[in-house]
Amino acid sequence: MHDLTIALDAMGGDFGPQVSVPAAQQALNLFPQLHIILVGNQAEIDPLIKHCQLSQHPRLRVIHASETVAMNDKPLLALRGLKDSSMRVALNLVKSGDAQACVSSGNTGALMALSKTILKVLPGIDRPALITALPNVQGGHTYLLDLGANISCDADTLFQFALMGSVLSEKVEGQAFPKIALLNVGEEETKGNDQVKRAAQLLSACSQINYTGFIEGHDLFSGKADVIVADGFVGNVTLKTCEGLAKLFKQQLISSINQNWFTRCVGFLLKPSLKPQLAHMNPDLYNGASLIGLRGIVIKSHGSAQSKAFLNAIKAAIKEIERQVPAQITDKLEAVLLERDS
Amino acid sequence: MHDLTIALDAMGGDFGPQVSVPAAQQALNLFPQLHIILVGNQAEIDPLIKHCQLSQHPRLRVIHASETVAMNDKPLLALRGLKDSSMRVALNLVKSGDAQACVSSGNTGALMALSKTILKVLPGIDRPALITALPNVQGGHTYLLDLGANISCDADTLFQFALMGSVLSEKVEGQAFPKIALLNVGEEETKGNDQVKRAAQLLSACSQINYTGFIEGHDLFSGKADVIVADGFVGNVTLKTCEGLAKLFKQQLISSINQNWFTRCVGFLLKPSLKPQLAHMNPDLYNGASLIGLRGIVIKSHGSAQSKAFLNAIKAAIKEIERQVPAQITDKLEAVLLERDS
Repeated sequence: MHDLTIALDAMGGDFGPQVSVPAAQQALNLFPQLHIILVGNQAEIDPLIKHCQLSQHPRLRVIHASETVAMNDKPLLALRGLKDSSMRVALNLVKSGDAQACVSSGNTGALMALSKTILKVLPGIDRPALITALPNVQGGHTYLLDLGANISCDADTLFQFALMGSVLSEKVEGQAFPKIALLNVGEEETKGNDQVKRAAQLLSACSQINYTGFIEGHDLFSGKADVIVADGFVGNVTLKTCEGLAKLFKQQLISSINQNWFTRCVGFLLKPSLKPQLAHMNPDLYNGASLIGLRGIVIKSHGSAQSKAFLNAIKAAIKEIERQVPAQITDKLEAVLLERDS
Repeated sequence: MHDLTIALDAMGGDFGPQVSVPAAQQALNLFPQLHIILVGNQAEIDPLIKHCQLSQHPRLRVIHASETVAMNDKPLLALRGLKDSSMRVALNLVKSGDAQACVSSGNTGALMALSKTILKVLPGIDRPALITALPNVQGGHTYLLDLGANISCDADTLFQFALMGSVLSEKVEGQAFPKIALLNVGEEETKGNDQVKRAAQLLSACSQINYTGFIEGHDLFSGKADVIVADGFVGNVTLKTCEGLAKLFKQQLISSINQNWFTRCVGFLLKPSLKPQLAHMNPDLYNGASLIGLRGIVIKSHGSAQSKAFLNAIKAAIKEIERQVPAQITDKLEAVLLERDS
């Protein structure tokens, strides 16, 4: 691993530097080539840095930013109003080349708007998308995009999402010629809305993409596809539904076990067997959605992420830097365009 | 309970009369006022009726239908080609008044197309919707619609779905002034696509409906809403995602418990505590989606339903007959139109 630098929006999320500073500490310990720039309110960050004994750390730098994008601020305010926000300053570090990636737990809408404005989209890509990995029953990961960056999408946009997802799965997950599917209400060709049907035609005609057809909601975790493409409305509702249901099951299981002293004892005995099975489903492992399609790497950590989850978002950024994801997307797009022209 | 008659499409689903006949037997035993008409291939039904000792049952009748809509038949074939299908004959019994409801496990697309053509939509309703009840953490039920009858929906259609869902929740669940929400990518007014935003305005302006705002995927099971409205694409993907994830959790739990003899013993001890907790989530309990908005009652049972689940679909039909759901929808719609005109 070469030296690499990541800018952290230290103020984002529900916990700000309380989470980002300990996560930075863990990341610096884990990756000897990693340099971190913490961007945010110096007065808030400094005591935490001292507490984590990072004040003299040779690979950590703090850059002061006087403003913070609040979780409920409108994207327009972040864009036009807050000229010295920690999010903006962190993204500017990526633009200038001082950092190779930005990680933020902040306001998603603001992060998308600022990223698009500051970093710009890759040539040939119309709109960036938000993408994340989900566990599947085959023990691997399935990428789902878009998670809400684009509420309505035409067929060309869905095609570009498929292409970007394919690159991420291949380069980050090491999945050879990843299987791409479109999320739909049925598997038959006649099913779905016009955008999805037209995107299916575009994907079927492209030899650079291993398009496998439509996939339904119940196959999200089956491993039938390595990348599942949907518009931002459907993708967002789908992901949040999964989060809600996973939480519900966990609650039901815990309340079954906590019913009385006997079930608590029995539950304790079952724990060593249950834990590894359920660990694969732990949402912290999947923290770090990538804002893909930009001329730079931006990772969105969950607003409620604790330091362990935030660390996973930093790890996602490191992987994307190492595998040069934006350049790979450009290469893939060029190959597709060459094929179309020939 | 007055006498009532339900027509069963005996041939539908993956198992046809193997499931519908035993379910009919259970329903006849449970409800002394219930009459059932089994519609389908007499040669296939008769041996099963004999086996269930129903041959002389005073409240059971068989009507022969020479054709069956296959699970993968196109709706157009069911509509134009199969003139004597069990599904069509069962729906015609509702149209003629010989039955008050039809229950089918058959091809969803065909059932929707035939129902719309034979029974017609209620006055003032543009399109029927598919609606089902989901469990929520408050121990109650939340209705979700549309589940796929209408892939794209404008704001007026979403408004009508909200109205129909409100009637079902009030009349069938006994929920006073049910809380209605629109499924969206965020709770803020500015979030979502044009249809959803416009539907929110229509619902906010209507005093007959207890509209509570947007709801996100993670709150599907929270009980924050009694009825959640989405277009058929989003509703279908959401429901199927839940089905897939529920199955995955069950598998993970079972495989944790089946790891070795020790965990199997411990799992056995935990079973009496786990079972009632998880019973509330059993999908069989929620079998029976209603095709709402028609001049008659049509219940869609899951294609893979076993007799216990099919029985629940029959129970759903009985409830809708008793509560006169179609007439109640018309009344509610009239009240809404009166308010708009005044």
